[in-house]
Amino acid sequence: MRLDRTLFSTPEGIDRESFVIATYLVEHDSSVEILRSAAALAVEQTTGTWTPVPGETPELRKKHVGRVIAVHEIPAHEFEVPRNVETRQFIVEIAYPWVNFGHQIPMLLSTVFGNISMTGKIKLLDLYLPEKFVIGFRGPQFGIQGIRKILNVPHRPLVLNMVKPCTGYTPEQGAQMFYQAALGGVDIVKDDELIADPPFCPMMDRVKLYMEKEKEVFARTGERTIYTVNVTDRPDRMKMNAKRAVDGGVNGLMVNYLTAGISALQALAEDPAIHVPILAHLDFAGAFYQSPYSGLSSHLVLGKLARLAGADMVVYPSYYGKFPFLKERYVRIAHHLTELFYHIKPTFPIPGGGVHAGMVPFMLEELGNDSVIAAGGAVHGHPDGAVAGAKALRQAVEAAMSGLGLEEAAKEHRELKSALDLWGIYDKSRDRLLFDLK
Amino acid sequence: MRLDRTLFSTPEGIDRESFVIATYLVEHDSSVEILRSAAALAVEQTTGTWTPVPGETPELRKKHVGRVIAVHEIPAHEFEVPRNVETRQFIVEIAYPWVNFGHQIPMLLSTVFGNISMTGKIKLLDLYLPEKFVIGFRGPQFGIQGIRKILNVPHRPLVLNMVKPCTGYTPEQGAQMFYQAALGGVDIVKDDELIADPPFCPMMDRVKLYMEKEKEVFARTGERTIYTVNVTDRPDRMKMNAKRAVDGGVNGLMVNYLTAGISALQALAEDPAIHVPILAHLDFAGAFYQSPYSGLSSHLVLGKLARLAGADMVVYPSYYGKFPFLKERYVRIAHHLTELFYHIKPTFPIPGGGVHAGMVPFMLEELGNDSVIAAGGAVHGHPDGAVAGAKALRQAVEAAMSGLGLEEAAKEHRELKSALDLWGIYDKSRDRLLFDLK
Repeated sequence: MRLDRTLFSTPEGIDRESFVIATYLVEHDSSVEILRSAAALAVEQTTGTWTPVPGETPELRKKHVGRVIAVHEIPAHEFEVPRNVETRQFIVEIAYPWVNFGHQIPMLLSTVFGNISMTGKIKLLDLYLPEKFVIGFRGPQFGIQGIRKILNVPHRPLVLNMVKPCTGYTPEQGAQMFYQAALGGVDIVKDDELIADPPFCPMMDRVKLYMEKEKEVFARTGERTIYTVNVTDRPDRMKMNAKRAVDGGVNGLMVNYLTAGISALQALAEDPAIHVPILAHLDFAGAFYQSPYSGLSSHLVLGKLARLAGADMVVYPSYYGKFPFLKERYVRIAHHLTELFYHIKPTFPIPGGGVHAGMVPFMLEELGNDSVIAAGGAVHGHPDGAVAGAKALRQAVEAAMSGLGLEEAAKEHRELKSALDLWGIYDKSRDRLLFDLK
Repeated sequence: MRLDRTLFSTPEGIDRESFVIATYLVEHDSSVEILRSAAALAVEQTTGTWTPVPGETPELRKKHVGRVIAVHEIPAHEFEVPRNVETRQFIVEIAYPWVNFGHQIPMLLSTVFGNISMTGKIKLLDLYLPEKFVIGFRGPQFGIQGIRKILNVPHRPLVLNMVKPCTGYTPEQGAQMFYQAALGGVDIVKDDELIADPPFCPMMDRVKLYMEKEKEVFARTGERTIYTVNVTDRPDRMKMNAKRAVDGGVNGLMVNYLTAGISALQALAEDPAIHVPILAHLDFAGAFYQSPYSGLSSHLVLGKLARLAGADMVVYPSYYGKFPFLKERYVRIAHHLTELFYHIKPTFPIPGGGVHAGMVPFMLEELGNDSVIAAGGAVHGHPDGAVAGAKALRQAVEAAMSGLGLEEAAKEHRELKSALDLWGIYDKSRDRLLFDLK
């Protein structure tokens, strides 16, 4: 059967402002003809189905059909495919006219990875989003500079603390943890992703008590602290939670955006009544990115889409910590959160999970000062208490910025010394940690 | 290091009404101690973190920590692990106190598959939801019986048509397709998942024109047709779309619930202003279920969670059609949509994707009469037109119900005969189709 020429284009042959371009990794049985298969994807995700239908006219196709703009085999066989090859791998690029779905994330995802997500081994590696498409999104309301302004911290890397234990405490116990972390110099305190609004620790009680402590700390230290309260729930209730919390005086919000929905995060971020920064939490991300042959790349899930939806900060897996994660992935997410993206403001990268003072210089070396050092256990599990835990992290940040080095700085700061004595200095040469119970 | 005994229980040792039980497939390097690793998962997803923190008291743990209730190795080594084994596979069951997250889906997912989704090879196979947890959900407003009542079709399997081509047509062209499909005897017409509210085919124009046709058809045939209009958008806009469409007279809604958010579907389904059935569409599901070592089982994504969220109907991959899909998975989804689930009504299973008349008896044999035969191309791509395409499907359903068989029935029905001549009768012995362009 002849291939339909209208389903193909060169990358130069399309108007890039009219198309979203998706890049896939596809693995096929060696018997499959890749050009036919790629063309099938382009049709399936736009105008057509498995059998010709009369309404799919040439004119309709021209305006609305997807185009295969690149197919690269890995390795790039040219004169023969070795006989013992059972499967073949391809990078396929398809351009989709975004007039088909408009300025919204759910229909974007339904188009670029809807039914074709179920067609065997296929992973969505990247999305090129043209400016005319992105113009329909506001992105982060605050972003890196906005958060720096709230905190009055123009240059230094920020320090964030997750309240630990994750759940099960009362608002009063939580407020005490908040107070110690903030007093020790933490810039942002976030709820754990496992606590939202349970009966034993109501959200509004936390907002009230924590924000009282925030004012107390400011009076003592002159430093502000952002508290991101976890408002995660089904989208309509999440919006109500957020409005109640903001009316109650909270100065930050947190959303488990991958279980609540990426566009539920967007609805919150673009709501005119929400005038505080939003932290997007990574939990559930592995369900999307862990497989090398299905799902979506981690930098899409935790980078580009979160930023497009308006996350001011994103927590994602630290290479150095408790999640097994490739270093190149961890660095790539930060790029997608901070590089030029038309009018969309940069988002604060927050690599997290098992971070302690002994890792700080290595993290900042890679991510730069526009990043957040995030620690839960390293603050509340510090042998001299949470105030000391927070101080140790600020001391590690200062040591990294001044170029002094951790061991030198520890001579002058006993909090940092205790932290390094307990958890050590990260050994760059060692293998990544396996997730395990310490 | 000694294992903390409080992190373990037998299945009989917990109050099953107080816990959600998650079943995982875990693959580990053979050097990892599985009991320690499983205990780490139970702690990570409830009270703890990677290092001990003072607030995690014995009392707090007792109330809020997860418990490992089962660990089964596959194969079940007892006296030795063969030396050449490099990786070991386990089924792990962890019970989570649902007081930690309450009656909501996002926090349920953040708890059972939040950070641990990022800890290497781990797939969430199943969730046991106790009645006291499920009582917080309404489930489908209509379900199978409610939809049968609207249509006045008490027993027979239903026939559904997806308007094809998927996108790019005008509301007038769409209305013509709707009219033909409905006139031919289709019970439900759904939008394609690739069309929502684009400028060339506004949602409200479709509602107006299609519902006019619905009345015309009813006047001619005495049969009602449900039109599920695709309202997918970010949750707040989706709710507005839905209300406008319902006010405009539509008698059904459709949601791409995996890109819009499972709990965005729930918010819609439990909204008192929405008094029409909702069809949940499968697109994007492969991003969750395709990997054997990560993500979630297809029967969770497309079965249990969709039903819990209130889907009256769910479209999922047909084993017989264009999606590569294991038969046991396809059958299992139907079980999860229709079996006893406390007070939650059964959801209509709609296996779709490449379905035509020649498959109908085999599908009904497996799924029973409480299912929906769903075809796009087989209606609009029928050689004698869409009316004939719809008739052929109804004729196939009748042939299956009467036990007459397709070939016999085709002798009396030319529409069915044309369909079988073109697409054939499904050959039960043949391999599943690879997704391909016909």
